[in-house]
Formats: sequence, C-alpha cells, structure tokens
Amino acid sequence: MRKQKKVSDSYVIMTELVLPNDTNTLHNLMGGKMMHWMDIVSAIAAQKHSNRIVVTASVDNVSFAESIKLGNVVTLEAKVTRAFNSSMEVHIVVYAEDIPSGKKVMSNQAFFTFVAVDQLGNPIDVPEAIPETEDEVKLYDGALRRRQLRLVLAGRMKPSEANELRSIFDIKDDTQV
Amino acid sequence: MRKQKKVSDSYVIMTELVLPNDTNTLHNLMGGKMMHWMDIVSAIAAQKHSNRIVVTASVDNVSFAESIKLGNVVTLEAKVTRAFNSSMEVHIVVYAEDIPSGKKVMSNQAFFTFVAVDQLGNPIDVPEAIPETEDEVKLYDGALRRRQLRLVLAGRMKPSEANELRSIFDIKDDTQV
Amino acid sequence: MRKQKKVSDSYVIMTELVLPNDTNTLHNLMGGKMMHWMDIVSAIAAQKHSNRIVVTASVDNVSFAESIKLGNVVTLEAKVTRAFNSSMEVHIVVYAEDIPSGKKVMSNQAFFTFVAVDQLGNPIDVPEAIPETEDEVKLYDGALRRRQLRLVLAGRMKPSEANELRSIFDIKDDTQV
Amino acid sequence: MRKQKKVSDSYVIMTELVLPNDTNTLHNLMGGKMMHWMDIVSAIAAQKHSNRIVVTASVDNVSFAESIKLGNVVTLEAKVTRAFNSSMEVHIVVYAEDIPSGKKVMSNQAFFTFVAVDQLGNPIDVPEAIPETEDEVKLYDGALRRRQLRLVLAGRMKPSEANELRSIFDIKDDTQV
Amino acid sequence: MRKQKKVSDSYVIMTELVLPNDTNTLHNLMGGKMMHWMDIVSAIAAQKHSNRIVVTASVDNVSFAESIKLGNVVTLEAKVTRAFNSSMEVHIVVYAEDIPSGKKVMSNQAFFTFVAVDQLGNPIDVPEAIPETEDEVKLYDGALRRRQLRLVLAGRMKPSEANELRSIFDIKDDTQV
Amino acid sequence: MRKQKKVSDSYVIMTELVLPNDTNTLHNLMGGKMMHWMDIVSAIAAQKHSNRIVVTASVDNVSFAESIKLGNVVTLEAKVTRAFNSSMEVHIVVYAEDIPSGKKVMSNQAFFTFVAVDQLGNPIDVPEAIPETEDEVKLYDGALRRRQLRLVLAGRMKPSEANELRSIFDIKDDTQV
Repeated sequence: MRKQKKVSDSYVIMTELVLPNDTNTLHNLMGGKMMHWMDIVSAIAAQKHSNRIVVTASVDNVSFAESIKLGNVVTLEAKVTRAFNSSMEVHIVVYAEDIPSGKKVMSNQAFFTFVAVDQLGNPIDVPEAIPETEDEVKLYDGALRRRQLRLVLAGRMKPSEANELRSIFDIKDDTQV
Repeated sequence: MRKQKKVSDSYVIMTELVLPNDTNTLHNLMGGKMMHWMDIVSAIAAQKHSNRIVVTASVDNVSFAESIKLGNVVTLEAKVTRAFNSSMEVHIVVYAEDIPSGKKVMSNQAFFTFVAVDQLGNPIDVPEAIPETEDEVKLYDGALRRRQLRLVLAGRMKPSEANELRSIFDIKDDTQV
Repeated sequence: MRKQKKVSDSYVIMTELVLPNDTNTLHNLMGGKMMHWMDIVSAIAAQKHSNRIVVTASVDNVSFAESIKLGNVVTLEAKVTRAFNSSMEVHIVVYAEDIPSGKKVMSNQAFFTFVAVDQLGNPIDVPEAIPETEDEVKLYDGALRRRQLRLVLAGRMKPSEANELRSIFDIKDDTQV
Repeated sequence: MRKQKKVSDSYVIMTELVLPNDTNTLHNLMGGKMMHWMDIVSAIAAQKHSNRIVVTASVDNVSFAESIKLGNVVTLEAKVTRAFNSSMEVHIVVYAEDIPSGKKVMSNQAFFTFVAVDQLGNPIDVPEAIPETEDEVKLYDGALRRRQLRLVLAGRMKPSEANELRSIFDIKDDTQV
Repeated sequence: MRKQKKVSDSYVIMTELVLPNDTNTLHNLMGGKMMHWMDIVSAIAAQKHSNRIVVTASVDNVSFAESIKLGNVVTLEAKVTRAFNSSMEVHIVVYAEDIPSGKKVMSNQAFFTFVAVDQLGNPIDVPEAIPETEDEVKLYDGALRRRQLRLVLAGRMKPSEANELRSIFDIKDDTQV
Repeated sequence: MRKQKKVSDSYVIMTELVLPNDTNTLHNLMGGKMMHWMDIVSAIAAQKHSNRIVVTASVDNVSFAESIKLGNVVTLEAKVTRAFNSSMEVHIVVYAEDIPSGKKVMSNQAFFTFVAVDQLGNPIDVPEAIPETEDEVKLYDGALRRRQLRLVLAGRMKPSEANELRSIFDIKDDTQV
C-alpha cells in the first residue's frame, strides 16, 4: 500500500526582506523575484512531503494585484495539497507587510507542481497527501480540476475529456478555480 | 485616435549563462530563476511597446518539460502580442543550448501580462499592437481567449460570460490555448 | 504608561536553501552567510515588536558546532526576548535539515540586539515585551545577565558593577548564559 | 616539535564598497553583511596561517556603534592572534571611510575562531602563532581569557574552572576582554 | 582541411536591465559590471563558434564615454571576427536605452579574445571564421592589426616586427584601430 | 597652485575569495568577474586620491595568462600612477593564491582610467600625483605614453601627433608599454 503523509507535514514558512535589487524603478518588488521565492518555498514543501529531490513541473496562472514596496517583509507559506504518483501540487500564499505602518495584506496565491526524482533525475513515486483541516480538504478537492486545466493548457489532454474542468464553466459565480 | 506600434518594435532577445547559484542539487536550472529571467525580458518588451514603466500583472500557466543544465546558454525571446487599454500581453519563447554538444531545444513558452503606469503608479493607456507576420496574427487572435481565462481564473469574470474561452472546450484537439 | 506587546507577536520563521555560493570548498555553509541570515530574521522580529526601523547594535557569542551542507534547508526562528528603552534582545534558533535523509538538527542559537530608530536614525522607545510561555519567561529573565555581559565586553560597564553577571561565576554548572 | 609561523604572515586586508543591496531602508550597511565580510577576511587569515581549509567555529560578541553609509569604503584587517591545536583565534578590525568627506572611523573589532580541517572535514593541527609586535603580544596574551569565556558561554567549561576569565571581574576598569 | 564557420553563426544578443547594485552613488552603471556582461556575451559567441569551453585571453582597450543610468536597458551584441588556431577575437557593441524617454545610444565597443580549451584546459583548434557582410570583412581585416598590438602590449612581439601595427602610425586620420 | 598628493596615499588592497558563481564550467574564475573587481579596487584608489566620486573612463588592454581556481584567494593592489586635470590613471596588480598548496602567482596587471566628477556628474580637477619610489616614478613616466595610446585608440588623437607613443615602435625590446 502506498505510504501516506499529512498535508501539514509539508508546511513551510519563508520570510524575505525586499532589498533594492529586488525592485523596479518605482521601488516595487518585481514579479519575477516573487516567483523565484515562490519556487523555492514550494520546492521545499514538496521535498518535505516526498523526502526527495524535486523539479518544478509547472506553475499555474499567478496574478499580481498588490504592489509590494522596498523594505516590506514578504511571508510565503507553502504546503502540498495533493500528490499524484510522482507529482505534487503545492499551494503558496504570500503576505506583504509594511511594518512601520502596520499594514499587512495577502498579496498573492499560487499553485506550483513538482515531480520527485531520484539521483538520475527519473520520476519516483511519492506518498499520498492526507488533508485534515477544512481548508486542506477544499484544496485537495480542487486539485484534480486544476490538474486537468494544466493538462489541457499543456496540450496533453483533450478539452472534451476534462470532465472536472468543464464543470467550472457550468457553475455560475464559482470563480475560485 | 489611439497610437499604433508594430509588434516587431517590442522584440527583445536576452541571453543568459546558467551559473552554479541558478541550479539545484542535480545541477539543473531552477524553475524560479527561469521565471525571474522571463519576467525581466518580457517587462523590457512591454516597456519598448509602451515607452512607460510597467508592472507585472499576471503570469499564465508555464510548464517545464526540459531540464536545463549548469553551463547551458539560455536564450529568451519576447514580444508584445496584443495591447488592451493599459495592459499588454507578452509572449516569451525560451531556448536552451548545450554548446559543446551542439544540442539546442525550445524549452518553454509563456505569456506574461504587464500594466503600463505613470510615475505615481497609476495605469496609463498604451498604443495598439499591430501584428504583421502570420505568427504575430495568430498570437494576436488568441490573446482575447487567454485574457478571458486569466479573468475567470482571477475571479473577475463569470465563466458563463467568457465566450471566447468556452469555445476552447468545444473544439477538439485545439490544445494550444 | 509604556505600551506592552506579547513576545509571540514578534515571532518570525525564515527558511533558506543552501546554494552553491553560500558554501566553502567542502560544500559546507559558511558561517558568515549564516550570520547574514540571522541578522535579517532577527531584524524582522525587532521590527515587528517595535513597528520601527531597527539597526543592529550587537551580536552575542555564536558557536558553530554542526556543519550544514549544500542543498540543506535552514530554518531560522526569531523572537524578541526583552525590551530595554529603545533596544530589544532577539533570540534566534537555527535548524538544518537534510531532507532526502530526513536528518534534522538544531545547529545554532544566537542573541542579537537591535535599537529602534526614527527616520533620522535617532533611538526611540519601544513597547515592553511580555513573555507568556515558560521558555519565554526564562529567556526574559536571562536577558539582563546577557545585557550586562555585553556592556562589560563593550567597555561600557565596570565588571564590579555587573551584579547579574558576576552571579554566573558563583553558580556551578549553570553553563547557559 | 610543532611548526611555528609569525602572526604577521597571516595578515589580510580586504576592501569593500557598500552597495545598495548591502543597506537597510536608512541606507546604512546591515550588520549581517558586515559579519559576512568579517567571516571571509578572517577565514582567509586562518587559511594563510594553517595552509588548510578552515571552518568557522565561533564568533565572539560584536558591537556596532557606528553607522556605515551607502557608498562608504569598508576596510577589514585580519590576523591570527593565537593557535590552539587545530583552532585559531583571528582578530578583525574594521574601518569605514566616507571618501568625499574624508571621514574615516574604526567602526568595529571582532574575534572569530576557526578550526583547520583535512579534506574529510576532520580537525588537524596547525602551527603555533608567534607574536612579534607589542600589539600582537597583547592580543596573544588575551586569547586564553577569551577562549575560556567562549567555553563557558558554550557550556563546555564550568565557570569555576575559568581561572583566566574570573580575573576580569576582579580587575576594575579593564574593559578590554 | 580546417573546418569553416560563418561569422554570423556566432552572433549573440544579450539584454540586461541596470539594477541598483550595478550602479555607483550617482546611479550610473559601473564600468566593471559592464565588462562583466561583455565577458559573458563574448564568451558565448566564442563558444558558439568553437563548440568548446572557452577562457578569456585578453581584453582590448575599452573606453566609457556615455553614462548609463539605473533602469536603462543595455543591449550587447557580440560576434567572432576572426579565428587564429585556438584563439578567437570577438567584437562587442553595446547600446544603452532609456525607454521612457526613447533615447538610445551606442555606448561602447570592445574586442575580447578567447582561447578554446578541452576538458583538461588545453588549447584546441577552432574552425576558421568566414566573414560575409562588408562590416564583417572590415572587422576580419583589422583583426591581424589588433592582434599584433595585443602581442606587443603583452611583451610577446617586438614592436619592430609588428608590421601591420606600424602601418597605423603612418596613415594619418585612421584612428579606428 | 594645484594641490599635490602622494601616490602612496591612494594605495588600496582588496582580497576576494573565488566563489562558485564566479567560475566557468572548468571551475576557473571568469575574466569578467576579475575585471569587475579591478574596477572596484581602482575606483576606490581614484576616490582616495581625489576625494571625489569617480567614473570609469577607460580600461587598457588586459591579458589573462593564468587560470585562477575556485577557492583561490585573489589579492588586488591598486594605486594612482599619475593625474591629468580631472582624470587619473590607476595601476592594478593581481595575485592569485592557492593557499592549501602554498602556490601564489602574479596573475594580471592592468591600467584603468577614471574621471573625478561633482554631484552633477561634471568633471572636476584633481590633485597632482607625486611618485616617490622607483617603481612609482617608472609608472608615472610611462603614463603619458599609455595616455597617447588610449587617445589614438579612441580616435581622439592622430597617430602622427602621438610622439611619446611612436617612440615605442623605434625602441627594440621595450615591450613594457
């Protein structure tokens, strides 16, 4: 039987200070630097779940609504939502905090997918991820839908076969893919 | 009337060498570093189109099929595909080359969206992007569909209103969103 | 009356991946890089306590017993232990984890002291730090002793006046300064 | 008989320019960056004395009295003060210079301790360090006292056995530990 | 017979954004950073010509007439001009662009020379470089003269034997070496 | 009368450790990184001479004969050789040391030229540089010849007017330009 691990065992918190080289000429954090941090924190979550070296397989759509300023403190929280054979989806939530003003916002969410590999770089099976809290269960349930969207977008699944995904477009107001 | 600029005027080529700190313990380029480069090259393309400071608004789904090794040369080519008021979609194609072995592959494609802003950070209109080649026209035509997907995924458009997008799921074998 | 904040409000977790440029020719994390991370995580804890810009005032003796390897995940946990007018002592605990082997060790502890300053760089008063847990109380109680040691070592207090400190040398087997 | 080397043979000067990423939002050099430089310069001094790979074993209390600004030139001078079997104490003096204004200050002093290791990371004996100048002799003489303080602080020596150290607290006005 | 490759096969374009850490206190790009980029782009051109690892052998006189500002986009174009046994001369042209103002200037030109080496670091023969355009032919023709200047400056050729080079000093107004 | 300063007042020593990101796939220091360090150390020497902000004006021919390895210690020594109105020539000597093997070589020499500028970036006069030792006098004397070569190479002096320079090509065996 396949090994099981709790979602919470993969939980990682990373804190970064926005330094001058991370910013554009408006002194805002550049999106690419944010994604670099997201990749590292989520890779560590996937490593903790699998106890393996992991490689980034895909990044889902990320949007950048908030501008984050030079000197802000950025906190990234990552955890595995669900595992599929050798791949793991990781959910990342990012908070930005301007400490002197006491203003803290949730600036971004993202889903990264990783594949666990052996020392030769070949994919290798990972434990099942067992959700426990309500939030974890919700993320676990949505993972299949997001996985189908990824496969369709990568041209590896026919849209007509993406049953989970098609349902999104029948349910009004469910904007949380 | 709105100003017009050719898509080709925004074209940017960036070349990077994969250095040790860009790699994981398998000596493969980390996905986050790749996205950092993608963000810079596409921001420059959007700047060239708009002659403005630009901020990253969103990143579409990116998949990482190929592993890129330490010492490889990575070439990123970016151009604006279409402009919408103050936002611009940029298409990036990435090639990885192992020069001693003469092996070169197209490793990734991505779409980043930027918003042009003034010195205070407020959105400001940009010129229309005029496609000329067949490839540019195809990317221009697909931009509306990708924009609807982005809005649906960000919860800012109801799936039932995303007409362009829904059509994807009726057309078999059109896997290129 | 002076404002009060709970010790736990300043708690920060930072996670870092040991990259090639962080290591020496034995592929071990360099001590200076570790201290760089310690300084950032503890400055953030002091900022959270004071809601001010902070500057590093001193670093207590740090010892490096464990070697941390390339690819390890380093977790730094910091919290303010006690506040004195404009200065705050921060306690940092560092864990190093080799994820594929599942080996995790507490590698270091350290105490950094920060001064809160205004926009001109002048010291400014900070809230009192209120310990709640047994561990927090113990760290709070020891802070005065460590402060006297710092002042004596910096030549700003006569050893004969360092009452708290002198007691260390009368109590056998209390090696935890 | 154990090999001997002059203290002056280990002497190293390092000069650094304070760049934007080294500074906080007040444009002052961050303490952690300074300690990163201290670690590198003192590791080189210890390497020169031992002709071995060295690893940082401990850092003594460091205080930061002066603020060092963006664009300043920082000069770090390091030399081995005394060797003990496989370990070496290194003394570092740091100067900060604002060249346009011609203002130069001694900003910090520190003591770092290193252990010489072989290719497998095992400790290996180093030459004796022979002081020649008055300053070198004074640092050599104080090294034993600082070593006892380190051992007591690390919980590896009972305070009651730290004879050299206890004497500090009987001698008034000797603030130079 | 020796293998031949077209000059245009070695052509590389690199684009960089001037970030805070690349600049001095006037917010101008530092010359050393520019040369770092020149070295990378020209090394890639030499790699593409030779399909080998290459090492920098020399850099010709470079002058910096234009100041390049923080936030500017720097474009470096490099191509091999001529090959000599195991060495290749590479010509680099650098453009700096202030995109919001639409100002673009050619800021620098340089010639770097590389040697192709095998895995042990020993020099190894490279293909001939075949110029095609008028500009390529002109650069090819001047390469011998520049090579003699390099050898004279390095003390490896007597000035009296540098026939190509001496001619410069007889021809008035030919200031383009 | 113009202010005078001794050459030795501008003397700077910089020490760097070759880290992984500074090296190519043969683990040799890249030439561009070396030039980056040369630029910083020589800019500091020019700053010390002029007590001004300085900008790099030109770099003379540099050759790279020795390969410098990962983990080596690189020492750069710089001093102003001669001042001309607002410009200063700086001589840099670079040593590379493999400490475990005790092998130390002089790996490079270079001449960089800087211009002193005021806060607006306009050139401003600097003190005369007074050589004292035999070596300093020799470098001072050669500075005029190197300056003419720079001007000819930059197309700002006719070869026929470069009297100092032409003499090189009449004197046999004087290979030290």
